[in-house]
Amino acid sequence: MEKTLSELAEYLGGKLGGDGSVTLTGVAGLDDARGCHISFLANHKYAAKVATTQAGAVILPPGGESHGRNVIYLANPYLGFAKLVTLFHVHPLQVKGIMPGAFLGERVSLGTDVTVYPGAYVGDGVKLGDRVVLFPGVALYEGAEVGSDTVLHANVSVRERCRIGSGVTIHNGTVVGSDGFGYALDGADHFKIPQVGIVVIEDDVEIGANTTIDRAALGVTLIKRGAKIDNLVQIAHNCIIGAHTVIVSQVGVSGSTRLGEYVTLGGQVGVAGHLEIGDRVMVGAKSGIHGDIPAGQVYSGYPAMPHKQWLKAAMIAPKIPEMRRKIMALEKRFKELEALLPASKED
Amino acid sequence: MEKTLSELAEYLGGKLGGDGSVTLTGVAGLDDARGCHISFLANHKYAAKVATTQAGAVILPPGGESHGRNVIYLANPYLGFAKLVTLFHVHPLQVKGIMPGAFLGERVSLGTDVTVYPGAYVGDGVKLGDRVVLFPGVALYEGAEVGSDTVLHANVSVRERCRIGSGVTIHNGTVVGSDGFGYALDGADHFKIPQVGIVVIEDDVEIGANTTIDRAALGVTLIKRGAKIDNLVQIAHNCIIGAHTVIVSQVGVSGSTRLGEYVTLGGQVGVAGHLEIGDRVMVGAKSGIHGDIPAGQVYSGYPAMPHKQWLKAAMIAPKIPEMRRKIMALEKRFKELEALLPASKED
Amino acid sequence: MEKTLSELAEYLGGKLGGDGSVTLTGVAGLDDARGCHISFLANHKYAAKVATTQAGAVILPPGGESHGRNVIYLANPYLGFAKLVTLFHVHPLQVKGIMPGAFLGERVSLGTDVTVYPGAYVGDGVKLGDRVVLFPGVALYEGAEVGSDTVLHANVSVRERCRIGSGVTIHNGTVVGSDGFGYALDGADHFKIPQVGIVVIEDDVEIGANTTIDRAALGVTLIKRGAKIDNLVQIAHNCIIGAHTVIVSQVGVSGSTRLGEYVTLGGQVGVAGHLEIGDRVMVGAKSGIHGDIPAGQVYSGYPAMPHKQWLKAAMIAPKIPEMRRKIMALEKRFKELEALLPASKED
Repeated sequence: MEKTLSELAEYLGGKLGGDGSVTLTGVAGLDDARGCHISFLANHKYAAKVATTQAGAVILPPGGESHGRNVIYLANPYLGFAKLVTLFHVHPLQVKGIMPGAFLGERVSLGTDVTVYPGAYVGDGVKLGDRVVLFPGVALYEGAEVGSDTVLHANVSVRERCRIGSGVTIHNGTVVGSDGFGYALDGADHFKIPQVGIVVIEDDVEIGANTTIDRAALGVTLIKRGAKIDNLVQIAHNCIIGAHTVIVSQVGVSGSTRLGEYVTLGGQVGVAGHLEIGDRVMVGAKSGIHGDIPAGQVYSGYPAMPHKQWLKAAMIAPKIPEMRRKIMALEKRFKELEALLPASKED
Repeated sequence: MEKTLSELAEYLGGKLGGDGSVTLTGVAGLDDARGCHISFLANHKYAAKVATTQAGAVILPPGGESHGRNVIYLANPYLGFAKLVTLFHVHPLQVKGIMPGAFLGERVSLGTDVTVYPGAYVGDGVKLGDRVVLFPGVALYEGAEVGSDTVLHANVSVRERCRIGSGVTIHNGTVVGSDGFGYALDGADHFKIPQVGIVVIEDDVEIGANTTIDRAALGVTLIKRGAKIDNLVQIAHNCIIGAHTVIVSQVGVSGSTRLGEYVTLGGQVGVAGHLEIGDRVMVGAKSGIHGDIPAGQVYSGYPAMPHKQWLKAAMIAPKIPEMRRKIMALEKRFKELEALLPASKED
Repeated sequence: MEKTLSELAEYLGGKLGGDGSVTLTGVAGLDDARGCHISFLANHKYAAKVATTQAGAVILPPGGESHGRNVIYLANPYLGFAKLVTLFHVHPLQVKGIMPGAFLGERVSLGTDVTVYPGAYVGDGVKLGDRVVLFPGVALYEGAEVGSDTVLHANVSVRERCRIGSGVTIHNGTVVGSDGFGYALDGADHFKIPQVGIVVIEDDVEIGANTTIDRAALGVTLIKRGAKIDNLVQIAHNCIIGAHTVIVSQVGVSGSTRLGEYVTLGGQVGVAGHLEIGDRVMVGAKSGIHGDIPAGQVYSGYPAMPHKQWLKAAMIAPKIPEMRRKIMALEKRFKELEALLPASKED
């Protein structure tokens, strides 16, 4: 594919600077770009590279220094970059139909232009929307539903009766609908709480690789529209993950916790069960959340506290041994001082 | 299925209150229940809901306020709930036999009523007990053994010669018997310590999704009877996990560590290698265990300490910056004070 | 297999002590060994067991007390042990060819003596070197490349165009080349940054089970020669993992971070994005790394600090409540003291 800079400026809704007739065939970073590439400046720290890049054109924020380059000025250059990578480098998955070696159960409902790779298994009563793609080793248990334009990568499991919306992508090895973890002590044994609920994943969700989302005990574990979940994340039974919420890798969310909209959880965060995390809350990587957090707050630490407080506490942590020594020194000096002052000995 | 409240009271061994002839067809939470449902009060915090629930009957602890409801009084209402969910809502897996598309190696020993789904692989010399179910994508390597009434969900791997007991459930994507992680430096290279031991999983164990249990270097990695392990847990080589021990999601247990019976490890806990964790020890979520813990102790924190001590330390953590300021203020005042007291300047 | 002690001493390049004619058929730990076994002393703490072991011979460090046993003296007994376990107990995987039930796409390039198990999928244009083994459920997407003597265990996924070197072992369920986690806000929606780069894994790398290695946004996520990565590890997009670096289970490395050579990251460590971790850095288990670390440093803690500093801070952590009480007591006594000293009241 070949586009002129003018065409790209129009496509992105940006303002052209320099020669709009230059032709471009791809996107690359400032360091790697050559004359056929358009690059972008998303982080001001790299502004000097605009002068030295070999790129044929650069996407800059409004007012950015062009250093004589051909440019597109755009409020969000990173978004422009993403859109051009999509334009130049992303190709739709080929429709392959039901391939030999794919396993289809009974009463399966298929949309148009579905692709089922060899070694994928579609259980009895499963419903697949249009243009669904199931890569090898995908296992859809009985009664699962998958909406249109959804892609399940190799070795994804979707357990019985779980429902996945449209435009969803789930990466390899992820498990949707495994049993929640619940037992009641029955004398010396753990009696299993049957997990007879399901998982519902709404439209436009993306889930990374080897993540696990447990089905509800009763009712539903719910991942709302547009949520983005990274690799190796654990979502326990009966959680509700709000719309457009972002969960980074290796986070664990315990049972029945509700996250609001546009929440961001950093990597390796743990959230205890039965909590309410408000809209647009941000939690720093590796934090441990033991209580509710109101909307809009930024928290960090283990146990978590307001982020600014944590920054201060964290900065001082290495100085705690010194603090202890100082306290002991003060006590000693104090005792010596008191010895000099008979009057203070009364109490 | 339809049961009268009297029948259910007798089934659970509880005491009937109200109208025993009311018929019930399922179990639901206090909020969602309708007249056909029996509900339960497990957490005193929700006691007021007993008055307002639409449930046809409620399981209460002895002496619980019935608010005029039909009730079953039971010492452990949560256990009663679990038993009734099992009664009403859990159906045995259908026996499907060796389905087309299942792969069986040579010298495979099969019990009666075994189900092997399409795309499951049963290696040479594997032994399967009665009523074993292998979902699609299960891979049993050469010489693996699986006891009766054990269910392996889609994409579970069981490596060569590992042995799984009876009544075991392993959820999707879990790996039993991958190589332990061990190398010896050989000049500039890491020389692999071959991992020629196995994993043994005893009866009535349940293991979640995408968990990994490494085979022993020599000998056995052992998961004892009735242990319950959640999703995304790492059990390293040569560990012994005691009977009825509960390990919550994303825990990591390092090599050769032994956990006693009825231990509970909270989510994201890390346990160092070669440790002894005694019977009935409880460890709070996200803790890091660097030393042995005697039986019966409750620990938390990173590094871990007795839980009560950690609660105090954790509560004070946000105040550490203030503590530092106070120490500095005391030092300053002290200096000023000493300046006023010539006598104290001697030392 | 049967070897004399003299033969083994020569094989390892060690010094014989005692009867070199004794024949041995395997390796076992000091506790479990019988007369047909050779054992080893790698940890001085177990030196007394050399006197009581039933082993037919023992590998000792130079100058180790033999207690009259037949011995091989070797600078690194643990390495000698590893080499003998390999000699006695590791058998090459059997070449099985393309087995029935294996799925091969178009334009696949196959080396000699390749094994592809039933249920493995080899996409269009894939290249496999000599003696490659693909266990059941392996999915190689279009254009993937796998070097000679590489083993991919059951249910491993390798995504489109990713390249794996020679002599690599990847354990079950691991995902190579899933999309990196990147979005740009587009009004109220997260616009996906397409991940059009790849993963390159160099020779002699070993990767554990259920680990995830994301493909680059643009360019390459790179795992260099001889690196060893444990189970359930997350390597984000555009990371570079240096040669011979060791990453223990459940570690997460965020995007674009570079680890040097011979780095060691303990279990459950988290590393933030865009960092430089120098050669031979060691990081203690569960640490959180938020900044660059120069070569050769040892760090621990959350947030991480030099290890020795952390040891002191960690030891004092349980005493923080007591420190606070002491500060308050000092303040109180100070006030009382000041009340006695009119002269100090001036400021």
